Amino acid sequence: MTTSAAGDADPDSFERVVNDLAPGCTVDDTEEGGLYVATVNGVVKYGVFVDLSEQLSGLVHESKLDGTYEIGDEMLVRLVEIRENGDLGFEDVTTEFDDLDRVDVAHGDGVTIDELADRTGDAVHVEGDIVQIKQTAGPTIFSVRDGTGVVPCAAFEEAGVRAYPAIELGDTVRATGGIETHDDAPQLEVDKLVRLRGEAKTEVRERIDAAIAANAEPADPDPLIEWPAFDSLREGLTAVARRLRTAVLEGRPIRVRHHADGDGMCAAIPVQLALENYIAEVHADPDAPRHLFKRLPSKAPFYEMEDVTRDLNFALEDAERHGQRLPLLFMVDNGSTEEDTPAYRALAQYDIPIIAVDHHHPDPDAVGPLLDEHVNPYLHGEDYRITTGMMCVELARMIDPSITDDLRHVPAVAGLADRSKAHAMDDYLALAADAGYDETELEDIVEALDYAAHWLRYQSGPNLISDALDLDCDDAERHAELVEFLSSRARRDVERQLDDAEPHVEHERLDNDAHLYRLDVENHARRFTYPAPGKTTGELHDRKVTETGDPVITIGVGPDFAVLRSDGVRLDIPNMVTELQDELEGAGVSGGGHLVVGSIKFVPGARERVLDALVEKMEAAELDAELRSTLLRDDN
Amino acid sequence: MTTSAAGDADPDSFERVVNDLAPGCTVDDTEEGGLYVATVNGVVKYGVFVDLSEQLSGLVHESKLDGTYEIGDEMLVRLVEIRENGDLGFEDVTTEFDDLDRVDVAHGDGVTIDELADRTGDAVHVEGDIVQIKQTAGPTIFSVRDGTGVVPCAAFEEAGVRAYPAIELGDTVRATGGIETHDDAPQLEVDKLVRLRGEAKTEVRERIDAAIAANAEPADPDPLIEWPAFDSLREGLTAVARRLRTAVLEGRPIRVRHHADGDGMCAAIPVQLALENYIAEVHADPDAPRHLFKRLPSKAPFYEMEDVTRDLNFALEDAERHGQRLPLLFMVDNGSTEEDTPAYRALAQYDIPIIAVDHHHPDPDAVGPLLDEHVNPYLHGEDYRITTGMMCVELARMIDPSITDDLRHVPAVAGLADRSKAHAMDDYLALAADAGYDETELEDIVEALDYAAHWLRYQSGPNLISDALDLDCDDAERHAELVEFLSSRARRDVERQLDDAEPHVEHERLDNDAHLYRLDVENHARRFTYPAPGKTTGELHDRKVTETGDPVITIGVGPDFAVLRSDGVRLDIPNMVTELQDELEGAGVSGGGHLVVGSIKFVPGARERVLDALVEKMEAAELDAELRSTLLRDDN
Amino acid sequence: MTTSAAGDADPDSFERVVNDLAPGCTVDDTEEGGLYVATVNGVVKYGVFVDLSEQLSGLVHESKLDGTYEIGDEMLVRLVEIRENGDLGFEDVTTEFDDLDRVDVAHGDGVTIDELADRTGDAVHVEGDIVQIKQTAGPTIFSVRDGTGVVPCAAFEEAGVRAYPAIELGDTVRATGGIETHDDAPQLEVDKLVRLRGEAKTEVRERIDAAIAANAEPADPDPLIEWPAFDSLREGLTAVARRLRTAVLEGRPIRVRHHADGDGMCAAIPVQLALENYIAEVHADPDAPRHLFKRLPSKAPFYEMEDVTRDLNFALEDAERHGQRLPLLFMVDNGSTEEDTPAYRALAQYDIPIIAVDHHHPDPDAVGPLLDEHVNPYLHGEDYRITTGMMCVELARMIDPSITDDLRHVPAVAGLADRSKAHAMDDYLALAADAGYDETELEDIVEALDYAAHWLRYQSGPNLISDALDLDCDDAERHAELVEFLSSRARRDVERQLDDAEPHVEHERLDNDAHLYRLDVENHARRFTYPAPGKTTGELHDRKVTETGDPVITIGVGPDFAVLRSDGVRLDIPNMVTELQDELEGAGVSGGGHLVVGSIKFVPGARERVLDALVEKMEAAELDAELRSTLLRDDN
Repeated sequence: MTTSAAGDADPDSFERVVNDLAPGCTVDDTEEGGLYVATVNGVVKYGVFVDLSEQLSGLVHESKLDGTYEIGDEMLVRLVEIRENGDLGFEDVTTEFDDLDRVDVAHGDGVTIDELADRTGDAVHVEGDIVQIKQTAGPTIFSVRDGTGVVPCAAFEEAGVRAYPAIELGDTVRATGGIETHDDAPQLEVDKLVRLRGEAKTEVRERIDAAIAANAEPADPDPLIEWPAFDSLREGLTAVARRLRTAVLEGRPIRVRHHADGDGMCAAIPVQLALENYIAEVHADPDAPRHLFKRLPSKAPFYEMEDVTRDLNFALEDAERHGQRLPLLFMVDNGSTEEDTPAYRALAQYDIPIIAVDHHHPDPDAVGPLLDEHVNPYLHGEDYRITTGMMCVELARMIDPSITDDLRHVPAVAGLADRSKAHAMDDYLALAADAGYDETELEDIVEALDYAAHWLRYQSGPNLISDALDLDCDDAERHAELVEFLSSRARRDVERQLDDAEPHVEHERLDNDAHLYRLDVENHARRFTYPAPGKTTGELHDRKVTETGDPVITIGVGPDFAVLRSDGVRLDIPNMVTELQDELEGAGVSGGGHLVVGSIKFVPGARERVLDALVEKMEAAELDAELRSTLLRDDN
Repeated sequence: MTTSAAGDADPDSFERVVNDLAPGCTVDDTEEGGLYVATVNGVVKYGVFVDLSEQLSGLVHESKLDGTYEIGDEMLVRLVEIRENGDLGFEDVTTEFDDLDRVDVAHGDGVTIDELADRTGDAVHVEGDIVQIKQTAGPTIFSVRDGTGVVPCAAFEEAGVRAYPAIELGDTVRATGGIETHDDAPQLEVDKLVRLRGEAKTEVRERIDAAIAANAEPADPDPLIEWPAFDSLREGLTAVARRLRTAVLEGRPIRVRHHADGDGMCAAIPVQLALENYIAEVHADPDAPRHLFKRLPSKAPFYEMEDVTRDLNFALEDAERHGQRLPLLFMVDNGSTEEDTPAYRALAQYDIPIIAVDHHHPDPDAVGPLLDEHVNPYLHGEDYRITTGMMCVELARMIDPSITDDLRHVPAVAGLADRSKAHAMDDYLALAADAGYDETELEDIVEALDYAAHWLRYQSGPNLISDALDLDCDDAERHAELVEFLSSRARRDVERQLDDAEPHVEHERLDNDAHLYRLDVENHARRFTYPAPGKTTGELHDRKVTETGDPVITIGVGPDFAVLRSDGVRLDIPNMVTELQDELEGAGVSGGGHLVVGSIKFVPGARERVLDALVEKMEAAELDAELRSTLLRDDN
Repeated sequence: MTTSAAGDADPDSFERVVNDLAPGCTVDDTEEGGLYVATVNGVVKYGVFVDLSEQLSGLVHESKLDGTYEIGDEMLVRLVEIRENGDLGFEDVTTEFDDLDRVDVAHGDGVTIDELADRTGDAVHVEGDIVQIKQTAGPTIFSVRDGTGVVPCAAFEEAGVRAYPAIELGDTVRATGGIETHDDAPQLEVDKLVRLRGEAKTEVRERIDAAIAANAEPADPDPLIEWPAFDSLREGLTAVARRLRTAVLEGRPIRVRHHADGDGMCAAIPVQLALENYIAEVHADPDAPRHLFKRLPSKAPFYEMEDVTRDLNFALEDAERHGQRLPLLFMVDNGSTEEDTPAYRALAQYDIPIIAVDHHHPDPDAVGPLLDEHVNPYLHGEDYRITTGMMCVELARMIDPSITDDLRHVPAVAGLADRSKAHAMDDYLALAADAGYDETELEDIVEALDYAAHWLRYQSGPNLISDALDLDCDDAERHAELVEFLSSRARRDVERQLDDAEPHVEHERLDNDAHLYRLDVENHARRFTYPAPGKTTGELHDRKVTETGDPVITIGVGPDFAVLRSDGVRLDIPNMVTELQDELEGAGVSGGGHLVVGSIKFVPGARERVLDALVEKMEAAELDAELRSTLLRDDN
């Protein structure tokens, strides 16, 4: 007898179980003593002939019956005898089903989905969850996964008509039918599709969960470098890897939203590479990596309402059009701050779990309740010097360790991009040097990435970025020439911008002895080109720090924003924003960032008032040689 | 004998008709006395053997012939005798066809398309119009509709080569062939495809038109509320419903352009729901609703040249790429004004009919000649208080009455969104209350819609909007939480914007005793976020009306525009625009709107001159407590 | 014996060649005396039985063997005898292959791809290059071209698994298998796919190159008019036509980037028409013209970094997703200047050849090394009066001469659009007149194109533009009405803009007696509508030239740009830009153009300084009645 929910049920419940056989069931699918659903197919003087399946028929003697029956009536019989010649003997006939669990018995072997490739032509059943329902012009295609794989199950009701309309995404089912080869991959042609309930469902769900849990378990590679600070993050990253691998196994799409800067790309691209490999491994469909993974650079340093509205809109459309599940959202180098919460709350009404790996100063009280996982060095007494790229390279290796060799230089690039002074930087630079990248080359890659990202304008541009980052690039010379070209263009454009800006930079010596440099980026910088105002201000600041030495504050002022950077002064930009909001009526102040690197927005009419108040606060700030603008958020 | 054009022809014309039999025709397809095309297939001493079809052959005796014939020659014969044994007797043989109408006779039963599902394997013919021609890498697919349905007819000439190149979109044809099942839907494998002409065409076209007219007839549900004003609009809305259903039956795509505000969405979304249902009912292809319907929110309060150029471009591309017909354009809550006419005239060169349902003050002289249907309460002595949402809910029910239960609260939402003071509002609110929505909840929905639409930025976002509007939302709790979230965000952002703006609002008491409030929305409001300048000005105005009581005028001033709202003052904004155009040289004034709600554009250099002139006109306006800014057009 | 690399090899090398027979090979595929790979399939006392193919077996006597063999072992045998009964006799048996060239021998006839349509069911082999590799959920599809056509070859390894992973895009191969019909086009079901090397490869490559060279040879039609200046351009245009036709034959996509003005469209659209026809002729897939050709209007008068980044991104994605080759880039009415070189250098790392046909003043030293072909009248002592449209109409006719009759009026439109005073203009106007277009009509087309292009906003809009240009438009009345509508709208909008601007135009008489007109296009022109600042300035200039007579200079000034036009003054705008860059510190000056038509960019804060310096230079310029602003670049 094949595996069936009935057979697996615990003995105590046996008496309460009535088996409903699939059309193809034979005597091998039955058991003496079991209760079965029978359908009348003939009425004779001495009783009624009944079918248990297309293969199994027998006579119920009139002595067992009370009342009259018509063809098509259902009754319940106990199968008490299977004779040598195949005749069946029945007892305990009744038409009262109410207190019984009706369990569907599949014909064919119960198999796991990873075994189907060898079963073409066989009748089998699989048990699993519905992860996609797609209506075609012909059959309805139910994608079923059981933790070992995903198989399309084609059920035909009528051309273009939804088969089994009661069965929905997420249901646990048993699909019975023949295995055919469709586009050379196995497909189950459904004879019967049954939603499992009760114990049968519980048993199958447990089996699936165990299979997924087993398959989802990330690899546990040694970190690329000896890195004590990493230990505290390891558990969180493992949990994130597990969630991402689980999503792949569950057929749930993954959407990555990442900061569109160097560190953000060094974090998101390795994860993309690892996940695309893993999706390709799990899903037979060669288009699956494209359908199940999307990476989206974010323009703002937080998750804007416009972005989340667009993302939600696309997710709902994909769900409707392709019968996909709603996605898992993965925030990378972004997503830790209070400013992200409105977007998160917009998603909270939908089945869209959110996880974040970030190194920006987090507001765990605000985002904690909205995130399913949150990895951030600040939560472990570390800080932004552990960049997201460093963390996500390890994360990517947990998802797919086979890509390790392509990634050895990436943490160093991420660190240089965010000017990280982490202790680990030396080791990362050494690791990159071993892989053949000296520091000059890595710096060039940083500039090239920044320049390419600028012109991609928030398209993801995976191939170009991979070539610039030398990730999965099959042509070393192309990488080198591309980086040489992009980085020298970037440097030339920065040079030109600063040369034009310098004559208009206003210098002032504050009471606290800090140098204040002020540039009107609206009027004295090229607009709509590279470098943008944030980068322009940052590069100007670096020049001034080099020229004059600390303490230095630089402000890049636009019509409704100011970009701030400071070295050697104890600024606290988030706090300054809060104070300005209180002090300046009708100035529409918002913004923030880090202590000494950030940006402030205001209404254009309040520009002078805001700047005056800002300078006053800067003047009152204490000097502190430790506070350095090593981490840039390019906000404008 | 099967239906054939020959058989149906009127007797007088019989002598002029020569029948060309399809290859599969049998004796049942012929009639004694008829003229037939015969092809020589053998030449013998005593005459020639001819074929009338693959099944029908006979001898033409040499006594009937003059001249010599070769195999393959065509001649015309009169069939005078069909003997018991199937032999045919011919007379009146000639090779002169010139003065005769050659009519193709199909073999197989003439059937309607809705009968094809039961005819797999049969040889049949269908008669109808070509609504799509799609060239594949293999056969050419002609979609034929006969008013009962649409069937793909596959004709193969050579791989990738257009079969029957003379047959074009819109032709009336007879397609003969076998019915096969393709993707489990019937497809006709074409043996012969003939363009019908003359009477045969007329007869078929009349039959199709009758079938379409019968099927296109809208439902006639009772209006949701007793509503005398509606009676005058009913006929127009029925005509619109009929046109939209006809378009679906004809396989013509429908494009909806609607005002992107609350009323516009409450109007367009129910129509979308009804049409998608109806398309799914008529067309077997499950992708048909997506291919045949598109809803596009308009940024401007009229049909801009940029939008129409883009729409026309896409329509021409779809027509070329998918062999689709050009679309029907349906303007919703938009499209009644002179400003729409340039766009309409751009379409006039193409087969793109336009219909409009709107409640903005119309210019029927300007748009009338360009619209095929125009429903607007002003055309019936009513006004904007009957909102487009109210009308379109009834329209949607005429298209598909089954959606009524989902729509009961929608007219109330539409009315609140446009601050309608229609007499019907009380009844609509009561109707919504019966459906479980109290007024507070409806107001929240209005705010949520406005907020979601802002961030969707003129994407249609159907699922999100449907969830916010609780239309076809399968999860009441999600709707409630989504609305709660979106509406509270919207209110908070408005609050914040007004708090920042208030200190900069300039107040002035005009000579006519009206309060004039003036806000520089460029310099004292947050830019590129919610609420936009129009909404900001409207909310400020409402605050001021509450604070000071009438009469109040509010102006939100940008660098090249001004948003105007007024309560209790007899402004006439369209007239003011006309006067300013005359009075101010080189100011580039345009714009308009309603009497007391509107906006004005000008060139930035003329800003002060325009504003001074405007205020002067406001000062000269009479007070009129009746004139209230109940209808907002959010122009900026 | 069929063609095989072995058979074709030169006799000297024969002894070094061992033949590996395909499974289906019969005795006809062999030759007495040849060396063959044999596989042991039986071991008996007196020797071993070996297979040379599924059809060819024989006994190797133990006397020829040393050592023992197991089933599955390979050895090398010389086939010395093919007996009447088919038995084979072997000599010279060895297992040492190392110093031998192993050559695969295909079974089946060697055929060219254009013969495959008649070979359904046959076993054949084809030899050619891999031009696309597409992984499906089932087989891997290799597109092979041999210069006579392209055929898909389906190789199945395992569902969704890349077959023959060692074979890459660009490899020269022999594909052996059966011809089946797939979507009614021939497809080769691969039994064996072999990468050719050495002489076999050389021979096939030469055959392919010869076939492509023969097929790629452009037509050589007489120019539409007698045109001495054209002779010098003819060779270059022929080379461009050859490259474009070669790209089509090679299955390489073509991307056209063209100036989005009248001349640019008159140049690019005929080329599009010709290439789409030619692609359809060469490729069976009806979607090929859409996949292999894309036309993209450029906003800027040069190839911007943003555009090239986007283009490269899409090209890399298409290459990855569709297994396509990287494209050929064709710059039209654009691409000759130093400003284009950064974009070109960004592509230089990739296999993306670039060709250009342009009539703007070229910088051959800068662009020459980066272009594979460069046609420009300046390179032959001619100038911009030979417009790109004039050249590209001849180019299009070289690619597909059948479209000549549709193009007779296009050079005249191109010339009028660029106000060409070429000697050829009279002949072109006469040619257009013969085709039924008088000059007024042509002028209307020019205005209509400009207006449509403006609203298309850098979408390509091929159908709308074709209708306006009356190219391939199947409805003369539609063309006429469309042009009438668009051109009258364009003229009305220009009229309105100038009427508003006129009162604000500042007039000045320079020391050199030139009239200087100056318009603040930011403050005294409508924004974001038609006409844009460049067109506004140009039209104003034309008015002023008419009103006042020469010499006239007109400047349209925006916040960070100035548009310049001049008649009768010896300006040299490129030189003025260079001087301003030197003289004005921190002004961020860039730009250029022609001598008397151009534009200048600067940072907003330098506006007054730049304008003052500009006017000073204008004042110093000599008058020169010959220098006229006949060619407009609409930069802003």
